Amino acid sequence: MKAEIITIGDEILIGQTVDTNSTWLAENLHPLGVRVNRIVSITDTRNAIREAVEDSFSRADIVLMTGGLGPTQDDITKETLAEFFDTELERDQEVLKGIEEFFRSKGRPVLEVNRAQADLPKGARILKNRKGTAQGMWFERDGKVLISMPGVPYEMKCIMDEGGFEMLRERFNAPRIIHRTVLTLGIGESFLADLMSDWETSLRNEGLSLAYLPSPGLVRLRLSGFAENGAAQKVEERIAHYIEELERRVPQHAFGYEKQTIAEVVGALLTERGATLSLAESCTGGYISHLVTSVAGCSVFYKGGVTAYANEAKTAMINVPAALIETHGAVSEEVVRAMAEGARKRFGTTYAIATSGVAGPDGGTADKPVGTVWMALAGPENTLTERHQLGRSRVGNITVSALLALNWLRIQILSKQFEISE
Amino acid sequence: MKAEIITIGDEILIGQTVDTNSTWLAENLHPLGVRVNRIVSITDTRNAIREAVEDSFSRADIVLMTGGLGPTQDDITKETLAEFFDTELERDQEVLKGIEEFFRSKGRPVLEVNRAQADLPKGARILKNRKGTAQGMWFERDGKVLISMPGVPYEMKCIMDEGGFEMLRERFNAPRIIHRTVLTLGIGESFLADLMSDWETSLRNEGLSLAYLPSPGLVRLRLSGFAENGAAQKVEERIAHYIEELERRVPQHAFGYEKQTIAEVVGALLTERGATLSLAESCTGGYISHLVTSVAGCSVFYKGGVTAYANEAKTAMINVPAALIETHGAVSEEVVRAMAEGARKRFGTTYAIATSGVAGPDGGTADKPVGTVWMALAGPENTLTERHQLGRSRVGNITVSALLALNWLRIQILSKQFEISE
Repeated sequence: MKAEIITIGDEILIGQTVDTNSTWLAENLHPLGVRVNRIVSITDTRNAIREAVEDSFSRADIVLMTGGLGPTQDDITKETLAEFFDTELERDQEVLKGIEEFFRSKGRPVLEVNRAQADLPKGARILKNRKGTAQGMWFERDGKVLISMPGVPYEMKCIMDEGGFEMLRERFNAPRIIHRTVLTLGIGESFLADLMSDWETSLRNEGLSLAYLPSPGLVRLRLSGFAENGAAQKVEERIAHYIEELERRVPQHAFGYEKQTIAEVVGALLTERGATLSLAESCTGGYISHLVTSVAGCSVFYKGGVTAYANEAKTAMINVPAALIETHGAVSEEVVRAMAEGARKRFGTTYAIATSGVAGPDGGTADKPVGTVWMALAGPENTLTERHQLGRSRVGNITVSALLALNWLRIQILSKQFEISE
Repeated sequence: MKAEIITIGDEILIGQTVDTNSTWLAENLHPLGVRVNRIVSITDTRNAIREAVEDSFSRADIVLMTGGLGPTQDDITKETLAEFFDTELERDQEVLKGIEEFFRSKGRPVLEVNRAQADLPKGARILKNRKGTAQGMWFERDGKVLISMPGVPYEMKCIMDEGGFEMLRERFNAPRIIHRTVLTLGIGESFLADLMSDWETSLRNEGLSLAYLPSPGLVRLRLSGFAENGAAQKVEERIAHYIEELERRVPQHAFGYEKQTIAEVVGALLTERGATLSLAESCTGGYISHLVTSVAGCSVFYKGGVTAYANEAKTAMINVPAALIETHGAVSEEVVRAMAEGARKRFGTTYAIATSGVAGPDGGTADKPVGTVWMALAGPENTLTERHQLGRSRVGNITVSALLALNWLRIQILSKQFEISE
């Protein structure tokens, strides 16, 4: 099954926005056995849209479009598609009700431009957008499908996740590809590939495929195999076998599956054990707290944290002796240890994590260059400390430190269950 | 001057890599007055490349290609381009020397596949790649230019920065496009469009164009105009005029320009005034702290914050009386006020922001449904409180609350400078 993706909007063409919609769509079409042959970004004029649609529709079985469906005057995708599919716009009363309800729930008046978003091409199937007012539209002709969606990423994802993918799966009945994704943390792509090269070779020899999907601090490994005629279970078992082997060999790095986050994994481990967590952040500046509180239901295990940015805050809020900071500096093993122990005591939790480092871009010294990060983990039995030397990017250092700290807690909680050789 | 970008490689089409090359090229072509009309990602087969090149070359003045120049057999871009431009490959002795030197400097042997990277199309100008072995190639025909570059981002950037852009600037002498972006917060795209429709009409009547670029909690407004033959200053003045009018009419929403963040803007206002900030976060869970500490140099104005998730933490860390929580509930005007005042006192800052709300997905009641957020802002003169009713998404509620809270602080700091009618 061949697909093409069309993204509409000047923000991509002038380099203001990176096109992550296409990446997400391509990644999620893959498990359905749909191959994306072409992605094109165009400007939102009638001609450009018309030309791109004609072009893609002539070649592909499935065309996915994002963008150009906003309420403002400059969005003409809907009209252009109605013209291409020889139909006309008609106000959909059910969609209109939904739009009115959407605004009512936010306590805002409904404007005529908002109502006009219920004007939809006759004959198109509507793919509900629960997160916004521009609906998804499903057109069909000559056995081919075109789906048009808004460009706001979370609205587009909602439309596909809550109907779009399922409808494609039903409509095209393509041979299934089975995918499992394992998440790893704390090891670079090339080191992991080198460490696991025999494993990768053996996996490929069995007809499975492997993709490394890196993002800052994380590498996702996607294992895939074609399940021809009812061989699904066998393929699933082979994939499970290789995942188990990976986990046995790098338990300190393999932390979860699919769309899990490290904070979810840690949260589940804490919840199972009735254990609790608090935080004392300096260089991570509240980002670990943000990751933890992004997990729904985190109040069961998370009591709270302090972002102790100023030295006085470290002293006043979590009892770090001023003299200790004076002697060793805020970025030191001694201070980060005192921060973790202070937070653990003040919040009364089982564990506490503390971070103190030089996030950059300024503030580095010869001893403690930008990227130096001290972490401490205080628990019921002892307090551990670790020093990391990360990179030069402030955002990168904050992100990676936070992920490493949470993974470290995971390793310590599980350390009695596996032998870790780092 | 019209350009098109072609990126070659399966990693984008299967969703493994986000196409940041196109974004970077588009962003950097813009100031040269080069308008990117189309970006297309294709697979690396001879047919796909040939078709895309023919297609783009027929429409655009400039075609930029990245990818498909690796040393392996499956990279056939160079051959396909030689064919398209009616020429043949020939080993370039100077490039060959450079490649051999490149490998020698890394202490690695030179393989024949590496030497073959010196086989370049006769007649093409070479754009030096200082960071790798695949050279950039500049082709010209019918007054049009095609540049082919490797897909590795830092190699591509090196080629363009160290020659490509300058050669384009010399070759075309194009009319400039002038852009300014204004950032707004706390008002939806359609409300803003409705409120400013006369302004938008007048702007368009003067030949300027306007784009609304929404993302969660934010709408960016981009104003653009063509500067023909030295009219740049006049266009800049017209754009500045419309931006000033926007700012005069919605000062509570228009908070910054271009790539600024609300935290940067607030940080600059605090720094100018020698004022400081602390935070007491409940529903935002450390996200405001993360936004603030993402600003380099924030330690000048930011002392720290507490994520007081558990009720006991609110009491222990920022002195919220337990009885107050008991009587009014944690999500209440009374408690959020006490949180802000407690944080301001404990951290000893000029201002303190506090948030308490029901982020969701669970925990809502009839009185306080999911999306209810109380905020307080304690300052030297008084403490203000506000209630917001946001949406149903946990991530959305956290993000939007944090942005609104920071913007509220901005408004209060500036409130003596403008009349705000909300």
